[in-house]
Amino acid sequence: MATKKLSSKKIATGSSLKPRMKPGTTSAQTAVSKIALLGFGTVGSAVARSLATLKLPGLQLTHIFNRNVARKRTSDAAKYVPSSVIWTENINDILASDVDIIVELMGGLPPIEGWLRKALASGKSVVTAHKQLSAYRGVSLSRLATQHNVQLVYGAAVAGGVPIIPGLLQGLGGDRITQLSGILNGTCNYILTRMEAGADYATVLADAQQLGYAEADPSADVDGYDARAKLVILSRLALHAEIDPDAVSTQTISNISAVDFTYARELNCTIRQISRCELDDGSTVRARVAPMLVPLTSPIAWSHGTLNMVVASGAFGGDTVFSGHGAGGGPTAVAVVSDILAVAQGCKSVQLPTRKRTVTGEFHAPHYCRFIVDDKPGIISSFSGALATYGINIDSILQRPGHPKHRLPFVVTVEPCLTSTLNKALATIAKMDFILETPLCLQMLAVEDKE
Amino acid sequence: MATKKLSSKKIATGSSLKPRMKPGTTSAQTAVSKIALLGFGTVGSAVARSLATLKLPGLQLTHIFNRNVARKRTSDAAKYVPSSVIWTENINDILASDVDIIVELMGGLPPIEGWLRKALASGKSVVTAHKQLSAYRGVSLSRLATQHNVQLVYGAAVAGGVPIIPGLLQGLGGDRITQLSGILNGTCNYILTRMEAGADYATVLADAQQLGYAEADPSADVDGYDARAKLVILSRLALHAEIDPDAVSTQTISNISAVDFTYARELNCTIRQISRCELDDGSTVRARVAPMLVPLTSPIAWSHGTLNMVVASGAFGGDTVFSGHGAGGGPTAVAVVSDILAVAQGCKSVQLPTRKRTVTGEFHAPHYCRFIVDDKPGIISSFSGALATYGINIDSILQRPGHPKHRLPFVVTVEPCLTSTLNKALATIAKMDFILETPLCLQMLAVEDKE
Repeated sequence: MATKKLSSKKIATGSSLKPRMKPGTTSAQTAVSKIALLGFGTVGSAVARSLATLKLPGLQLTHIFNRNVARKRTSDAAKYVPSSVIWTENINDILASDVDIIVELMGGLPPIEGWLRKALASGKSVVTAHKQLSAYRGVSLSRLATQHNVQLVYGAAVAGGVPIIPGLLQGLGGDRITQLSGILNGTCNYILTRMEAGADYATVLADAQQLGYAEADPSADVDGYDARAKLVILSRLALHAEIDPDAVSTQTISNISAVDFTYARELNCTIRQISRCELDDGSTVRARVAPMLVPLTSPIAWSHGTLNMVVASGAFGGDTVFSGHGAGGGPTAVAVVSDILAVAQGCKSVQLPTRKRTVTGEFHAPHYCRFIVDDKPGIISSFSGALATYGINIDSILQRPGHPKHRLPFVVTVEPCLTSTLNKALATIAKMDFILETPLCLQMLAVEDKE
Repeated sequence: MATKKLSSKKIATGSSLKPRMKPGTTSAQTAVSKIALLGFGTVGSAVARSLATLKLPGLQLTHIFNRNVARKRTSDAAKYVPSSVIWTENINDILASDVDIIVELMGGLPPIEGWLRKALASGKSVVTAHKQLSAYRGVSLSRLATQHNVQLVYGAAVAGGVPIIPGLLQGLGGDRITQLSGILNGTCNYILTRMEAGADYATVLADAQQLGYAEADPSADVDGYDARAKLVILSRLALHAEIDPDAVSTQTISNISAVDFTYARELNCTIRQISRCELDDGSTVRARVAPMLVPLTSPIAWSHGTLNMVVASGAFGGDTVFSGHGAGGGPTAVAVVSDILAVAQGCKSVQLPTRKRTVTGEFHAPHYCRFIVDDKPGIISSFSGALATYGINIDSILQRPGHPKHRLPFVVTVEPCLTSTLNKALATIAKMDFILETPLCLQMLAVEDKE
């Protein structure tokens, strides 16, 4: 039975991803592609709404898989779902069906991956918004899709509605992207831009949780794991480099405080969670997700609230900026529905060979170091001595009035050096008796358009 | 002979734009596509350089057509051209050859269009950077390409290296774009951002001509015809609306003066040449290319120098911003080579039905009106009387000190109204005896993210 479906499927979709044609139609008129949604939460229901509203030619929603279907199908969100749609709690109803495109919007690794492998192997294309799956398993799932002449696309996995993935694949394939940096987590951007305006971390985090921007456990966002998965995907598509997500270093934003924004402003900078990667000359990719000082003149500093932004720097085209809404039902549904449309029309993505690369978090960058000290004479001399031991030059020393001397925030910026070298000097400094807290060390971004 | 080539071609490329496969290869490994360049100027030579440097799989430059080949092939720009390439001054050598993709980088309508029609009809795909051709003939050429199962792509025709066209087609097909505004002419942006910094129009135009940004006759740029062609293309791809380029109203930037930037700054604005289009509720598209006042908080105001920028506003995804280098050999070659790669890999663009629409330059917008007056009592009363006759409310009146009273620049901003209504009031005002010059009237842009 399953075999029979598989073979009829193969005939229907053809062997080279060409659109499924009704006899006598021109290529602009494709046959109808049947679509199953896995997951009917915020994004799933937004996709159903977009499909119902846009009435795009050639797309038909036929199945929805979710837990507790009885509650879901009577919810307000279900009002855009055609009555003909089959609701099910049994994934096999979808996998054994004649749907052409499975749209995965559930999250979680173990069961999902197996389901999607089965779907691809049985000749169904897959559209997914799953960033962790795309980061960790994207290469092997894409290979499986190619073997079975179907498509795996995940435009919604990075930056929601911002068309970074199509932009990179179809629009910048003719450049050599050497560097990419961006704001890939709207929650962190919301928190940091509110802090820039004067709010403190704990208050803003609580607000973000209230607004549904942040989870009860905010670690995936604030500690950089969410952005890291997206960075790994972009590294593959922009730098053609396959890197291990777990090997990409991350740094939390949770120890940034109001005083850091004050000092950043004095340096004509602000603070953002930056995800960045660049090709080394050799076989290594430099990649890192961390709060950084960003010049106010950089496009990156324009990004406020939950906006996402990516700046791709190419050898021939210079800097290209993409910006927009990276999360939420509506924008994410834009990416998902755009991917569904492309798959249904038989529009493949450009593919270029990728290579496995080792990864390092080492960037040669200027750094911002903030200390909380119990002030006494000789501190600057102690600092500069420790830094000089490692060959690091101080660029500026900032000490604003208005803080108690026994608990004084004190900032040193240093000229470009490796973070690991600076960390050695900071380990020495951290042991000094006047240091009250672990020093905060942030890389500083220098965005120059290389064109 | 030609017929024989045509039929062998058909077999080679297949009937549904699938990639040309070597036997036994997987879909990621395509056979080699032969490429001919028409035109070996700045962009043509940059494309040759990119092809030689990037060594993208499956692409082979085989022919170059240009006038005066003897001079071109010995020029420094030719150093990236493989020695195997056939140079020719006879277009029929290209049209009758076995090349797969013709890359048109020459400009000019009459001979080019015929050549490209012949190419498409003989089964060759076409990549072009030709904005006028794409604006005026894009629909009919695309139809011809579809008939012959080949591709016509023109990603380089709008905003050079900025992947706006792939972003719209592959990435925002799942939204309903209702409005699009942008900076589509780098020359005007260069002139206006230098004027913003204090330079005067004539000086900056001369500099732009010196730098090669502007032609000896700058009309196509400064009067908006270049941007208009691009706007027509974007209207087709974003709004799915076919509009007549000649029906889109344009306004020159050449009568903007330093004082306008001073007053704009007081209104927390700057001045940019804005190309914008939006869907009316009915069957009309509002479209216009004109200098406008732009709020400094708008992404559009970030765009400096020769940068291009487009903001697409969608019903579901809100505002998406694309920005980067819109001209020059390197960036334009990025778009051209990306298109070549997509065509060679059999990656079609998403296609949605378009409709013919009428077009109007009428926007309901706030306006900035600058007058040069021979000052005397009662001017404000005369102005407000003339405006009131047409039901137009004054929003602000600005009169900076430091100008001679007998030649006083004087600014009135008005609340949202139709430009045509305001023009009637201005025609009355222009006849008043204290008016020394034709008043300057600029629409003011209010960019709000609709998400």
